[in-house]
Amino acid sequence: VSQKIYFTPGPAQLYPSVEAHLKQALWEDIPSISHRSNQFRSIYQDTVEALRELLGLPDNFAILFTGSATEVWERLLQNCVEETSFHLVNGEFSKKFYEFGHLLQKKSLKQEVEVGKGFEVADIQVDYKAELIAVVHNETSTGVVTPEADIQQIKQKNPQRLVAVDMVSSAPYPQLDYRLVDSAYFSVQKAFGLPAGLGVWLVNEKCLAKAESLENKKFTTGAHHRLTNLWKFFEKYETPSTPNVLGIYLLGKIAQDMLREGVANIRKATDRKAQILYDFLQQDSRFEPFVQNPKHRSPTVIVANTVANAPDLIKKISAQGLIMGSGYQTFKEKQIRIANFPAVSLAAVEQLREALAQS
Amino acid sequence: VSQKIYFTPGPAQLYPSVEAHLKQALWEDIPSISHRSNQFRSIYQDTVEALRELLGLPDNFAILFTGSATEVWERLLQNCVEETSFHLVNGEFSKKFYEFGHLLQKKSLKQEVEVGKGFEVADIQVDYKAELIAVVHNETSTGVVTPEADIQQIKQKNPQRLVAVDMVSSAPYPQLDYRLVDSAYFSVQKAFGLPAGLGVWLVNEKCLAKAESLENKKFTTGAHHRLTNLWKFFEKYETPSTPNVLGIYLLGKIAQDMLREGVANIRKATDRKAQILYDFLQQDSRFEPFVQNPKHRSPTVIVANTVANAPDLIKKISAQGLIMGSGYQTFKEKQIRIANFPAVSLAAVEQLREALAQS
Repeated sequence: VSQKIYFTPGPAQLYPSVEAHLKQALWEDIPSISHRSNQFRSIYQDTVEALRELLGLPDNFAILFTGSATEVWERLLQNCVEETSFHLVNGEFSKKFYEFGHLLQKKSLKQEVEVGKGFEVADIQVDYKAELIAVVHNETSTGVVTPEADIQQIKQKNPQRLVAVDMVSSAPYPQLDYRLVDSAYFSVQKAFGLPAGLGVWLVNEKCLAKAESLENKKFTTGAHHRLTNLWKFFEKYETPSTPNVLGIYLLGKIAQDMLREGVANIRKATDRKAQILYDFLQQDSRFEPFVQNPKHRSPTVIVANTVANAPDLIKKISAQGLIMGSGYQTFKEKQIRIANFPAVSLAAVEQLREALAQS
Repeated sequence: VSQKIYFTPGPAQLYPSVEAHLKQALWEDIPSISHRSNQFRSIYQDTVEALRELLGLPDNFAILFTGSATEVWERLLQNCVEETSFHLVNGEFSKKFYEFGHLLQKKSLKQEVEVGKGFEVADIQVDYKAELIAVVHNETSTGVVTPEADIQQIKQKNPQRLVAVDMVSSAPYPQLDYRLVDSAYFSVQKAFGLPAGLGVWLVNEKCLAKAESLENKKFTTGAHHRLTNLWKFFEKYETPSTPNVLGIYLLGKIAQDMLREGVANIRKATDRKAQILYDFLQQDSRFEPFVQNPKHRSPTVIVANTVANAPDLIKKISAQGLIMGSGYQTFKEKQIRIANFPAVSLAAVEQLREALAQS
């Protein structure tokens, strides 16, 4: 790999061991093995076991693979919503999930806060018809985090509804209590530091039962990636069609490496690096954290307002090999986004801070 | 890579230059670059241009990316069929596409021939309601090919219907006249010799117009991967969500390598290797080609009946590092499948023939 360091919020910096695992995968012919072989089944199983341990995921959850986390939005709506989903919208990605509901002819509802803000649980008014509540742990577009305790409180207040958690740009950071979550999902090119092309869908038996009931009522739940079919194949550690075998292999290896490092250590290091960046953004008058409320400041995707023109600043810093993300859509000119994923070391974060300080 | 040679019909033997391109991709940080960057747009464009030249694909076709070829079945049905699709079923894969129609609440119809047989154009009775005809160039399960001329005749007889061609396990071998085809698709882990995790969907403006008309009539055409959305992003060489960037990069590189080798040479070499294998299967009394009619014998996936127990034979031959595919489902015990993809050299095919002769 080159000497650049990517602080982009996805695709992102590769986890340091990816290259070695890729070489090993080629040596073992992983891209050529049959997805109906014992060898593949054992790769799928290894990946599941490592992820279960890393995330604290109980046995009543399946771990399923899709083409992307975006596809998971579609599959959740098709399989877990008969009529009404309820979306907590606080940025572009939570909004897109809400819009998917209408594209799929559901009566999706939303509660929205201004960009840069998070939700206070007391203010959330879930529609009584909602079958599923969609909440984002980490909004990649705005850098707003919803603390795990708040997510769990939402479920405690709505025990009869399914709760689905977007942790696309934060897993494995969030320490969710999976007794109070029914589904969660992420993609591998963010905090796992892998090449894009694989979505990971964690889903429990309640979601499966919902999909079964929808199929009994003759709803369309999809084709190869309908939940009942994905789950049926999962039970033998297979997939309905040829998956991204190499991606599944690499995900398992990185999850094992993260276990070796210790997920508690990874979380601590993430917090420490985030603190360094937020402290800097508050101390240097040319910057400020976009998210005002410290409680809602994401540890994994840090968004800052800039006095300088943001694209110019990004270009200037990139000359030193430090690649930051640009502000999302309308914020392109006046914001930077800095991914603080496990693949980015403390030293790299300090280097970026110095570069920004001297910019 | 190891010393094994994979004759499996997908995932399959990697194209010889894949490893070098992977190394180069890591060197250039391809897995870390933004899918909204100029660098990504130019990768997408390079891949499109190489594929256009390789396949002879005119400008009225878009080249779109999905998670798999299986996903393309779903997207074709959602976007190009209001009520009725018509499927020429001659094996497990063509049958699954037909079944997807019912899962997606279309009135899908089929005409079926016995496994191991192909269709004679004169016998095909397309239902008058059919909006789309699904034809398989190469049935991976049975090794039956539908010659390009026959596919084109189907369109000539049905000019007002869309014709979609499955070339999952044959592209870039088939020399289709894309004036007489409306859509075609493949996955990269077959004849392109790449790691799995990317579907490639070739689709023309008539298909786009159909999707637009369905959306005007308030049909659900999908979410992020609805045809109108994929096409809109394609026009700027982007994708609706983060795609398998590395897969798209590698596909472009392999397509360029194949152009350097010359697609006519690749086709000639494929024919020659197929001839060697079919000749052997006919000469050795312990084998016979599963497909009786020479016209319908696939050049890229060669299926043989075996006198010996097929799993035993596969195991025996694999001890020499030559990995054959097993018979599909109910044929597991008495058939072998041999992929004759470009990644498998003439020398490798001769080595396999010798191993089978001495088995």
